[in-house]
Amino acid sequence: MTDANRQFRLAARPVGLPTRDDWTLTCEPIPEPGEGEVLARTLYLSLDPAMRGWMNEGKSYIPPVGLGEVMRAGGVGRVVASRHPDFAVGDAVSGGFGVQQYACLPGAQFTHVDPRLAPLPTHLGTLGMPGMTAYFGLLEVGRPLPGNTVVVSGAAGAVGSVVGQIAKLKGCRVVGVAGGADKTRYLVDELGFDAAVDYKTEDVRAALRRACPSGIDVFFDNVGGDILDAALATLARHARIVICGAISQYNNTTAVRGPQNYLSLLVNRARMEGMVVFDYASRYGEAVRDLSAWMAAGQLIAREHVVDGFESFPETLLKLFSGENFGKLVLKVAED
Amino acid sequence: MTDANRQFRLAARPVGLPTRDDWTLTCEPIPEPGEGEVLARTLYLSLDPAMRGWMNEGKSYIPPVGLGEVMRAGGVGRVVASRHPDFAVGDAVSGGFGVQQYACLPGAQFTHVDPRLAPLPTHLGTLGMPGMTAYFGLLEVGRPLPGNTVVVSGAAGAVGSVVGQIAKLKGCRVVGVAGGADKTRYLVDELGFDAAVDYKTEDVRAALRRACPSGIDVFFDNVGGDILDAALATLARHARIVICGAISQYNNTTAVRGPQNYLSLLVNRARMEGMVVFDYASRYGEAVRDLSAWMAAGQLIAREHVVDGFESFPETLLKLFSGENFGKLVLKVAED
Repeated sequence: MTDANRQFRLAARPVGLPTRDDWTLTCEPIPEPGEGEVLARTLYLSLDPAMRGWMNEGKSYIPPVGLGEVMRAGGVGRVVASRHPDFAVGDAVSGGFGVQQYACLPGAQFTHVDPRLAPLPTHLGTLGMPGMTAYFGLLEVGRPLPGNTVVVSGAAGAVGSVVGQIAKLKGCRVVGVAGGADKTRYLVDELGFDAAVDYKTEDVRAALRRACPSGIDVFFDNVGGDILDAALATLARHARIVICGAISQYNNTTAVRGPQNYLSLLVNRARMEGMVVFDYASRYGEAVRDLSAWMAAGQLIAREHVVDGFESFPETLLKLFSGENFGKLVLKVAED
Repeated sequence: MTDANRQFRLAARPVGLPTRDDWTLTCEPIPEPGEGEVLARTLYLSLDPAMRGWMNEGKSYIPPVGLGEVMRAGGVGRVVASRHPDFAVGDAVSGGFGVQQYACLPGAQFTHVDPRLAPLPTHLGTLGMPGMTAYFGLLEVGRPLPGNTVVVSGAAGAVGSVVGQIAKLKGCRVVGVAGGADKTRYLVDELGFDAAVDYKTEDVRAALRRACPSGIDVFFDNVGGDILDAALATLARHARIVICGAISQYNNTTAVRGPQNYLSLLVNRARMEGMVVFDYASRYGEAVRDLSAWMAAGQLIAREHVVDGFESFPETLLKLFSGENFGKLVLKVAED
């Protein structure tokens, strides 16, 4: 086993929710790094809603994963062999590991992570892509002002929980939409949200109207579908909607449900804007600095949902779509 | 007849297309202006898609017309009696006349129009609300850059024809979407658009892809529905969509069709933003100056579709929704 590199490869393009048949578990020798390359052992993999989109054919913001290729995934791990001057054996690194036990990449494709800032799984969550997405999506696209009402969907998730906490730090009234009483309680009692709406048991539109008496100034959407429509029905004048994702629509076998209430953008002179985190890559350092300082000061809580066992990847991924995960979903691949 | 003021009042809230039963034709004595008021005779009334929205119950960007009230409409006319120092008998004025033969309003609610700049009906089109909408919607919300590809729907209409011509003046490649060969020919041959798509006979999505090989940078939407979805499918990176109207959806008896392809905003880091012309009221003078200078230089063509006869109002209004009008739809109420 120690000489093997097991990998999940995309075997088929799923229709609806991915099943085990959409994957092939392969096993290869652990590669040797070539000149300028680094070999790292995967410790944790990031499981993200966006992965579902990468499994589809067709143009998106990055090319799809090809059939037969190792599934794309971010991860953190430790360097086990290096032929690049910036990396030494034992260094903690993050990068595009892929769903495999070892990743051998050009050094430039790995980034050092500082385990003193936070435990390694947090580098896939609040200090990783979800944290970057929350930080730049909220601050650069949503542009909240102190006193604004900010609503976030998927609020207990990896991105949403950071969005809401940053908005609080910026002096906003914050309302989260999440599924289940455990999550809504967590948002209000632990993360300091002003209110939370349980989409599984409440009329979201009515609940948002109650929670946002002067309307929504910034809506950060991870979910789409009915929740986006409910938010559109509750916009304040000059509202900003950040389209970060639409997890409710990713496994549709029929067409995406478009937002019926989009003419609220006209009535309220509001805007809806999409964002992709990679566009802010040159500024990740700025976000990590702010986010880790807030964590150190106890003003920002990071929570990961760690599932142990590389082979559980196909089933663990599905937790994202059932809403079973509570915090950033991370697959533990090996002990540090 | 000369002492009477005939009026169309809203009798019922229409379901779908308005019918004659939704109106009452009333007749009242011509009012006497009170202190500070001005009485003007209606010469031309502006018929606009937005009027359909004003007939519905419920909050929008302005309150609905109440049942029993004279239907709201912009118009131009001549002052016939004045108790306001800024207005003299014979002055040409524009304002919220309403669908009636005489309007008696506080002087501040009328604006002088200069008949030397253009014939009176043009003051309801290119130099009126549609022109203001086109000017500020395109330049302030769409923000086209020289070399950008600008697409406009309802391109032969009062707003769309001005949008496209301004975009050409700003150095853009311009594509119009309109219904019928007469209109598409007019856009290309008379107004100088680079291309036009006939939504009645062409696959709009395929035609837009052909006409916009590098994607759409600015989409100015007056129509909604399938045409909005086709444009969303053809966006360039960082595109701007101006939501000015959605005439395809105004007479729906079922829910509005939301744009299924809205996640293209995410993929393309694009934004969709609503606009209401009244927000730019303090800057109308700037637009009239530019638009009338372009007209005088032969760089901007204004076209009105004038229908004669006050009593034809209910049927004439419907031309907007069948697409029968060709240019700004104006109802002629009386000879100047």
